[in-house]
Amino acid sequence: MKYCSQCKTGIEWKIPAGDNRHRYVCPACDIIFYDNPRIVAGTIAEHAGKILLCRRAIEPRKGYWTLPAGFMENGESTEEAALRETREEANAEVIITSLFSMITVPHIAQVHIFFAAELPKPEFSSGEESLEVELFAPEDIPWDELAFPTVNRSLKLYLENPTPRHAHVFDILPHQALSVEEASPKS
Amino acid sequence: MKYCSQCKTGIEWKIPAGDNRHRYVCPACDIIFYDNPRIVAGTIAEHAGKILLCRRAIEPRKGYWTLPAGFMENGESTEEAALRETREEANAEVIITSLFSMITVPHIAQVHIFFAAELPKPEFSSGEESLEVELFAPEDIPWDELAFPTVNRSLKLYLENPTPRHAHVFDILPHQALSVEEASPKS
Ligand SMILES: [Zn+2]
Ligand SMILES: [Zn+2]
Repeated sequence: MKYCSQCKTGIEWKIPAGDNRHRYVCPACDIIFYDNPRIVAGTIAEHAGKILLCRRAIEPRKGYWTLPAGFMENGESTEEAALRETREEANAEVIITSLFSMITVPHIAQVHIFFAAELPKPEFSSGEESLEVELFAPEDIPWDELAFPTVNRSLKLYLENPTPRHAHVFDILPHQALSVEEASPKS
Repeated sequence: MKYCSQCKTGIEWKIPAGDNRHRYVCPACDIIFYDNPRIVAGTIAEHAGKILLCRRAIEPRKGYWTLPAGFMENGESTEEAALRETREEANAEVIITSLFSMITVPHIAQVHIFFAAELPKPEFSSGEESLEVELFAPEDIPWDELAFPTVNRSLKLYLENPTPRHAHVFDILPHQALSVEEASPKS
Protein backbone atom coordinates (compact mmCIF):
# COMPACT_ATOMS: atom_id res chain seq x y z
CA MET A 1 0.00 0.00 0.00
CA LYS A 2 1.58 3.25 -1.22
CA TYR A 3 -1.11 5.86 -1.89
CA CYS A 4 -4.34 6.99 -0.21
CA SER A 5 -7.28 5.44 -2.08
CA GLN A 6 -9.31 8.61 -1.45
CA CYS A 7 -6.85 11.40 -2.35
CA LYS A 8 -3.68 9.81 -3.88
CA THR A 9 -1.40 11.28 -1.18
CA GLY A 10 1.50 9.00 -0.19
CA ILE A 11 0.41 7.03 2.88
CA GLU A 12 2.45 6.61 6.07
CA TRP A 13 3.01 3.51 8.19
CA LYS A 14 2.67 4.74 11.76
CA ILE A 15 0.89 4.38 15.07
CA PRO A 16 -2.18 6.67 14.93
CA ALA A 17 -3.03 8.81 17.98
CA GLY A 18 -4.91 6.74 20.57
CA ASP A 19 -3.81 3.47 18.98
CA ASN A 20 -1.00 1.07 19.87
CA ARG A 21 -0.27 -0.54 16.48
CA HIS A 22 1.21 0.54 13.21
CA ARG A 23 -1.41 1.27 10.54
CA TYR A 24 -1.48 2.73 7.05
CA VAL A 25 -2.55 6.37 7.53
CA CYS A 26 -3.17 9.16 5.00
CA PRO A 27 -1.51 12.35 6.34
CA ALA A 28 -3.86 14.48 4.20
CA CYS A 29 -7.26 12.84 4.93
CA ASP A 30 -6.32 11.36 8.32
CA ILE A 31 -8.01 8.14 7.16
CA ILE A 32 -6.67 4.96 8.76
CA PHE A 33 -6.59 1.92 6.47
CA TYR A 34 -7.18 -1.08 8.68
CA ASP A 35 -6.21 -4.57 7.62
CA ASN A 36 -7.96 -7.40 9.49
CA PRO A 37 -8.10 -11.19 9.42
CA ARG A 38 -10.30 -12.82 6.83
CA ILE A 39 -12.77 -15.66 7.32
CA VAL A 40 -12.75 -18.85 5.26
CA ALA A 41 -15.99 -20.83 5.68
CA GLY A 42 -16.77 -24.36 4.55
CA THR A 43 -18.52 -27.62 5.27
CA ILE A 44 -17.74 -31.15 6.39
CA ALA A 45 -20.60 -32.73 4.48
CA GLU A 46 -21.52 -36.34 5.12
CA HIS A 47 -23.59 -38.77 3.07
CA ALA A 48 -24.07 -42.36 4.23
CA GLY A 49 -20.95 -42.16 6.39
CA LYS A 50 -18.79 -40.70 3.62
CA ILE A 51 -17.26 -37.21 3.45
CA LEU A 52 -17.43 -34.85 0.47
CA LEU A 53 -14.01 -33.67 -0.74
CA CYS A 54 -12.95 -31.56 -3.73
CA ARG A 55 -9.66 -31.78 -5.63
CA ARG A 56 -8.45 -28.24 -6.22
CA ALA A 57 -8.23 -26.93 -9.79
CA ILE A 58 -6.50 -23.71 -8.68
CA GLU A 59 -3.51 -22.55 -6.69
CA PRO A 60 -2.62 -22.63 -3.89
CA ARG A 61 -2.37 -26.39 -3.52
CA LYS A 62 -3.69 -27.26 -6.96
CA GLY A 63 -4.30 -31.01 -7.27
CA TYR A 64 -4.73 -31.54 -3.52
CA TRP A 65 -7.98 -32.51 -1.83
CA THR A 66 -9.90 -30.09 0.36
CA LEU A 67 -13.21 -29.59 2.10
CA PRO A 68 -15.38 -27.17 0.11
CA ALA A 69 -14.57 -23.75 1.59
CA GLY A 70 -13.68 -20.20 0.63
CA PHE A 71 -13.61 -16.55 1.66
CA MET A 72 -16.72 -15.19 3.32
CA GLU A 73 -18.19 -12.16 1.51
CA ASN A 74 -19.75 -8.98 2.88
CA GLY A 75 -23.50 -9.26 3.38
CA GLU A 76 -23.65 -12.99 4.03
CA SER A 77 -23.53 -15.02 7.23
CA THR A 78 -20.86 -17.59 8.04
CA GLU A 79 -23.38 -20.37 7.29
CA GLU A 80 -24.38 -18.77 3.98
CA ALA A 81 -20.72 -18.47 3.00
CA ALA A 82 -20.13 -22.16 3.77
CA LEU A 83 -23.22 -23.22 1.80
CA ARG A 84 -22.30 -20.98 -1.15
CA GLU A 85 -18.78 -22.35 -1.32
CA THR A 86 -20.10 -25.92 -1.17
CA ARG A 87 -22.44 -25.08 -4.02
CA GLU A 88 -19.73 -23.35 -6.09
CA GLU A 89 -17.00 -25.96 -5.63
CA ALA A 90 -19.03 -29.16 -5.50
CA ASN A 91 -22.47 -28.31 -6.96
CA ALA A 92 -23.85 -29.83 -3.77
CA GLU A 93 -26.82 -28.72 -1.66
CA VAL A 94 -26.10 -29.56 1.96
CA ILE A 95 -27.85 -28.93 5.28
CA ILE A 96 -25.76 -27.48 8.08
CA THR A 97 -26.18 -29.27 11.40
CA SER A 98 -23.68 -27.49 13.69
CA LEU A 99 -20.54 -25.41 13.95
CA PHE A 100 -17.69 -27.89 14.06
CA SER A 101 -14.33 -26.08 14.02
CA MET A 102 -12.98 -22.54 14.22
CA ILE A 103 -9.26 -22.43 13.52
CA THR A 104 -7.06 -19.35 13.50
CA VAL A 105 -4.03 -19.39 11.22
CA PRO A 106 -2.34 -16.27 12.66
CA HIS A 107 0.63 -16.09 10.28
CA ILE A 108 -1.68 -15.62 7.29
CA ALA A 109 -4.38 -13.73 9.25
CA GLN A 110 -7.16 -16.18 8.45
CA VAL A 111 -9.88 -17.83 10.53
CA HIS A 112 -11.19 -21.06 9.03
CA ILE A 113 -14.71 -22.06 10.09
CA PHE A 114 -16.12 -25.48 9.22
CA PHE A 115 -19.72 -26.54 9.73
CA ALA A 116 -20.84 -30.15 10.07
CA ALA A 117 -23.43 -30.78 7.37
CA GLU A 118 -25.53 -33.48 5.76
CA LEU A 119 -25.62 -34.16 2.05
CA PRO A 120 -29.11 -35.66 1.72
CA LYS A 121 -28.61 -37.00 -1.83
CA PRO A 122 -25.31 -38.20 -3.39
CA GLU A 123 -25.58 -35.49 -6.04
CA PHE A 124 -22.53 -33.38 -6.78
CA SER A 125 -20.09 -32.49 -9.53
CA SER A 126 -16.97 -30.41 -10.09
CA GLY A 127 -17.41 -26.66 -9.88
CA GLU A 128 -15.02 -24.34 -11.72
CA GLU A 129 -12.44 -24.47 -8.93
CA SER A 130 -12.46 -28.27 -8.61
CA LEU A 131 -10.83 -30.98 -10.74
CA GLU A 132 -13.03 -33.65 -9.20
CA VAL A 133 -15.44 -34.09 -6.30
CA GLU A 134 -15.84 -37.37 -4.46
CA LEU A 135 -17.34 -38.98 -1.37
CA PHE A 136 -14.69 -40.71 0.75
CA ALA A 137 -15.24 -43.37 3.38
CA PRO A 138 -13.18 -42.51 6.49
CA GLU A 139 -10.64 -45.27 5.70
CA ASP A 140 -10.17 -43.95 2.15
CA ILE A 141 -9.49 -40.29 2.94
CA PRO A 142 -6.28 -39.27 1.10
CA TRP A 143 -4.50 -37.91 4.21
CA ASP A 144 -1.22 -37.33 2.36
CA GLU A 145 -2.94 -35.39 -0.37
CA LEU A 146 -4.96 -32.91 1.69
CA ALA A 147 -4.54 -29.27 0.73
CA PHE A 148 -4.43 -27.48 4.07
CA PRO A 149 -3.66 -28.24 7.71
CA THR A 150 -7.02 -26.79 8.78
CA VAL A 151 -8.73 -29.38 6.58
CA ASN A 152 -6.53 -32.18 7.90
CA ARG A 153 -7.14 -31.28 11.56
CA SER A 154 -10.86 -30.69 11.11
CA LEU A 155 -11.36 -34.01 9.35
CA LYS A 156 -9.37 -35.91 12.00
CA LEU A 157 -11.31 -34.30 14.83
CA TYR A 158 -14.58 -34.92 13.02
CA LEU A 159 -13.93 -38.62 12.57
CA GLU A 160 -12.65 -39.03 16.13
CA ASN A 161 -15.70 -37.33 17.68
CA PRO A 162 -19.08 -38.90 17.01
CA THR A 163 -22.32 -36.94 17.50
CA PRO A 164 -23.28 -34.86 19.33
CA ARG A 165 -20.22 -32.92 18.23
CA HIS A 166 -19.18 -29.80 20.09
CA ALA A 167 -17.29 -26.93 18.48
CA HIS A 168 -13.49 -27.18 18.38
CA VAL A 169 -11.44 -23.98 18.59
CA PHE A 170 -7.70 -24.04 17.98
CA ASP A 171 -4.84 -22.49 16.04
CA ILE A 172 -2.53 -23.65 13.28
CA LEU A 173 0.99 -22.29 13.78
CA PRO A 174 3.62 -21.80 11.05
CA HIS A 175 5.53 -25.04 11.74
CA GLN A 176 2.27 -27.01 11.53
CA ALA A 177 1.51 -25.46 8.17
CA LEU A 178 4.92 -26.46 6.82
CA SER A 179 4.60 -30.11 7.74
CA VAL A 180 1.68 -30.42 5.36
CA GLU A 181 3.16 -28.27 2.63
CA GLU A 182 6.11 -30.65 2.48
CA ALA A 183 3.84 -33.49 1.37
CA SER A 184 4.44 -34.58 -2.21
CA PRO A 185 2.44 -32.56 -4.73
CA LYS A 186 -0.19 -34.17 -6.94
CA SER A 187 -1.33 -33.00 -10.32
CA MET B 1 -12.39 3.98 -2.69
CA LYS B 2 -11.34 6.12 -5.69
CA TYR B 3 -7.68 5.44 -6.55
CA CYS B 4 -5.40 2.43 -6.72
CA SER B 5 -3.28 2.32 -3.57
CA GLN B 6 -0.35 0.95 -5.61
CA CYS B 7 -0.31 3.25 -8.68
CA LYS B 8 -2.85 6.11 -8.13
CA THR B 9 -4.89 5.14 -11.22
CA GLY B 10 -8.65 5.67 -10.83
CA ILE B 11 -10.16 2.36 -9.79
CA GLU B 12 -13.20 0.69 -11.36
CA TRP B 13 -16.15 -1.05 -9.71
CA LYS B 14 -16.72 -4.14 -11.81
CA ILE B 15 -16.94 -7.92 -11.90
CA PRO B 16 -13.41 -9.25 -12.51
CA ALA B 17 -12.91 -12.11 -14.99
CA GLY B 18 -13.69 -15.46 -13.35
CA ASP B 19 -15.59 -13.80 -10.50
CA ASN B 20 -19.31 -13.24 -9.94
CA ARG B 21 -19.30 -10.13 -7.74
CA HIS B 22 -18.45 -6.48 -8.16
CA ARG B 23 -15.02 -5.56 -6.78
CA TYR B 24 -12.76 -2.54 -6.81
CA VAL B 25 -10.24 -3.22 -9.58
CA CYS B 26 -7.26 -1.19 -10.83
CA PRO B 27 -7.32 -1.18 -14.66
CA ALA B 28 -3.58 -0.43 -14.74
CA CYS B 29 -2.25 -2.99 -12.20
CA ASP B 30 -5.13 -5.48 -12.50
CA ILE B 31 -5.11 -5.65 -8.69
CA ILE B 32 -8.46 -6.57 -7.11
CA PHE B 33 -9.16 -4.81 -3.80
CA TYR B 34 -11.25 -7.24 -1.76
CA ASP B 35 -13.35 -6.11 1.14
CA ASN B 36 -14.34 -8.83 3.61
CA PRO B 37 -16.23 -9.16 6.89
CA ARG B 38 -14.40 -8.27 10.07
CA ILE B 39 -14.29 -10.25 13.31
CA VAL B 40 -15.13 -8.74 16.69
CA ALA B 41 -13.97 -10.97 19.56
CA GLY B 42 -14.80 -10.70 23.26
CA THR B 43 -15.54 -12.51 26.50
CA ILE B 44 -18.47 -13.31 28.76
CA ALA B 45 -16.40 -13.34 31.94
CA GLU B 46 -17.90 -14.66 35.14
CA HIS B 47 -16.79 -14.22 38.73
CA ALA B 48 -18.84 -15.72 41.57
CA GLY B 49 -21.94 -15.87 39.36
CA LYS B 50 -21.60 -12.28 38.20
CA ILE B 51 -20.81 -11.06 34.68
CA LEU B 52 -18.19 -8.46 33.76
CA LEU B 53 -19.58 -5.51 31.76
CA CYS B 54 -18.00 -2.25 30.58
CA ARG B 55 -19.76 1.07 30.03
CA ARG B 56 -18.53 2.52 26.75
CA ALA B 57 -16.51 5.74 26.78
CA ILE B 58 -16.53 5.97 22.97
CA GLU B 59 -18.96 5.98 20.07
CA PRO B 60 -20.82 4.09 18.81
CA ARG B 61 -23.18 3.61 21.75
CA LYS B 62 -21.22 5.73 24.20
CA GLY B 63 -22.65 5.39 27.71
CA TYR B 64 -24.14 1.95 27.07
CA TRP B 65 -22.96 -1.29 28.65
CA THR B 66 -21.17 -3.96 26.67
CA LEU B 67 -19.21 -7.15 27.02
CA PRO B 68 -15.48 -6.44 26.56
CA ALA B 69 -14.88 -6.99 22.82
CA GLY B 70 -13.24 -5.43 19.79
CA PHE B 71 -11.79 -5.98 16.34
CA MET B 72 -9.47 -8.93 15.91
CA GLU B 73 -6.02 -7.94 14.59
CA ASN B 74 -3.74 -9.67 12.09
CA GLY B 75 -1.32 -12.09 13.72
CA GLU B 76 -3.46 -13.04 16.70
CA SER B 77 -5.96 -15.84 17.28
CA THR B 78 -9.64 -15.29 18.05
CA GLU B 79 -8.95 -16.21 21.68
CA GLU B 80 -5.98 -13.84 21.89
CA ALA B 81 -8.12 -11.04 20.45
CA ALA B 82 -10.83 -11.67 23.06
CA LEU B 83 -8.28 -11.74 25.90
CA ARG B 84 -6.54 -8.58 24.65
CA GLU B 85 -9.80 -6.66 24.40
CA THR B 86 -10.80 -7.78 27.91
CA ARG B 87 -7.43 -6.55 29.14
CA GLU B 88 -7.65 -3.24 27.26
CA GLU B 89 -11.24 -2.36 28.18
CA ALA B 90 -11.50 -3.81 31.69
CA ASN B 91 -7.91 -4.34 32.88
CA ALA B 92 -9.01 -7.89 33.64
CA GLU B 93 -7.12 -11.16 33.24
CA VAL B 94 -9.59 -13.90 32.41
CA ILE B 95 -9.35 -17.57 31.47
CA ILE B 96 -11.30 -18.72 28.40
CA THR B 97 -13.32 -21.89 28.97
CA SER B 98 -15.17 -22.33 25.65
CA LEU B 99 -16.49 -20.73 22.50
CA PHE B 100 -19.96 -19.49 23.37
CA SER B 101 -21.45 -17.54 20.46
CA MET B 102 -20.66 -16.70 16.86
CA ILE B 103 -23.05 -14.12 15.45
CA THR B 104 -23.00 -12.71 11.94
CA VAL B 105 -24.32 -9.17 11.48
CA PRO B 106 -24.52 -9.23 7.67
CA HIS B 107 -25.63 -5.62 7.10
CA ILE B 108 -22.43 -4.31 8.69
CA ALA B 109 -20.26 -7.25 7.54
CA GLN B 110 -19.17 -8.25 11.03
CA VAL B 111 -18.90 -11.57 12.84
CA HIS B 112 -19.02 -11.28 16.63
CA ILE B 113 -17.41 -14.10 18.57
CA PHE B 114 -17.83 -14.40 22.34
CA PHE B 115 -15.95 -16.83 24.54
CA ALA B 116 -17.18 -17.99 27.95
CA ALA B 117 -14.47 -17.13 30.49
CA GLU B 118 -13.66 -17.10 34.19
CA LEU B 119 -12.42 -14.07 36.05
CA PRO B 120 -10.52 -15.76 38.89
CA LYS B 121 -10.13 -12.60 41.02
CA PRO B 122 -12.54 -9.65 41.17
CA GLU B 123 -9.81 -7.35 39.91
CA PHE B 124 -10.63 -4.93 37.11
CA SER B 125 -10.80 -1.23 36.30
CA SER B 126 -11.77 1.05 33.43
CA GLY B 127 -9.55 0.95 30.40
CA GLU B 128 -9.32 3.96 28.06
CA GLU B 129 -12.44 2.97 26.15
CA SER B 130 -14.59 2.39 29.26
CA LEU B 131 -16.35 4.84 31.60
CA GLU B 132 -16.78 2.15 34.24
CA VAL B 133 -16.45 -1.60 34.61
CA GLU B 134 -18.65 -3.63 36.90
CA LEU B 135 -19.68 -7.16 37.85
CA PHE B 136 -23.44 -7.68 37.47
CA ALA B 137 -25.54 -10.40 39.06
CA PRO B 138 -27.91 -11.85 36.41
CA GLU B 139 -30.90 -10.05 37.96
CA ASP B 140 -29.08 -6.69 37.87
CA ILE B 141 -27.97 -6.71 34.22
CA PRO B 142 -29.03 -3.38 32.65
CA TRP B 143 -30.92 -4.94 29.72
CA ASP B 144 -32.28 -1.59 28.49
CA GLU B 145 -28.83 -0.05 28.49
CA LEU B 146 -26.89 -2.67 26.53
CA ALA B 147 -24.86 -1.35 23.62
CA PHE B 148 -25.37 -3.97 20.92
CA PRO B 149 -27.86 -6.70 19.99
CA THR B 150 -25.06 -9.26 19.80
CA VAL B 151 -24.26 -8.52 23.46
CA ASN B 152 -27.92 -8.71 24.45
CA ARG B 153 -28.50 -12.03 22.70
CA SER B 154 -25.25 -13.58 23.89
CA LEU B 155 -25.93 -12.63 27.51
CA LYS B 156 -29.51 -13.95 27.40
CA LEU B 157 -28.40 -17.25 25.87
CA TYR B 158 -25.56 -17.51 28.36
CA LEU B 159 -27.81 -17.07 31.37
CA GLU B 160 -30.47 -19.43 29.98
CA ASN B 161 -27.96 -22.21 29.28
CA PRO B 162 -26.03 -23.58 32.24
CA THR B 163 -22.81 -25.55 31.77
CA PRO B 164 -21.75 -27.45 29.77
CA ARG B 165 -22.51 -24.73 27.26
CA HIS B 166 -22.38 -25.51 23.56
CA ALA B 167 -21.59 -22.92 20.90
CA HIS B 168 -24.50 -20.84 19.56
CA VAL B 169 -24.39 -19.70 15.94
CA PHE B 170 -26.92 -17.19 14.65
CA ASP B 171 -27.39 -13.90 12.80
CA ILE B 172 -28.58 -10.43 13.76
CA LEU B 173 -30.65 -8.87 10.98
CA PRO B 174 -31.19 -5.14 10.41
CA HIS B 175 -34.60 -4.95 12.12
CA GLN B 176 -33.17 -6.64 15.19
CA ALA B 177 -30.38 -4.10 15.37
CA LEU B 178 -32.85 -1.23 15.22
CA SER B 179 -34.99 -2.43 18.08
CA VAL B 180 -32.02 -2.04 20.39
CA GLU B 181 -30.81 1.21 18.89
CA GLU B 182 -34.19 2.74 19.68
CA ALA B 183 -33.59 2.27 23.41
CA SER B 184 -33.14 5.54 25.26
CA PRO B 185 -29.52 6.74 25.23
CA LYS B 186 -27.52 7.04 28.42
CA SER B 187 -24.63 9.36 29.05
ZN1 LIG C 1 -5.93 10.77 1.65
ZN1 LIG D 1 -2.98 0.31 -9.86
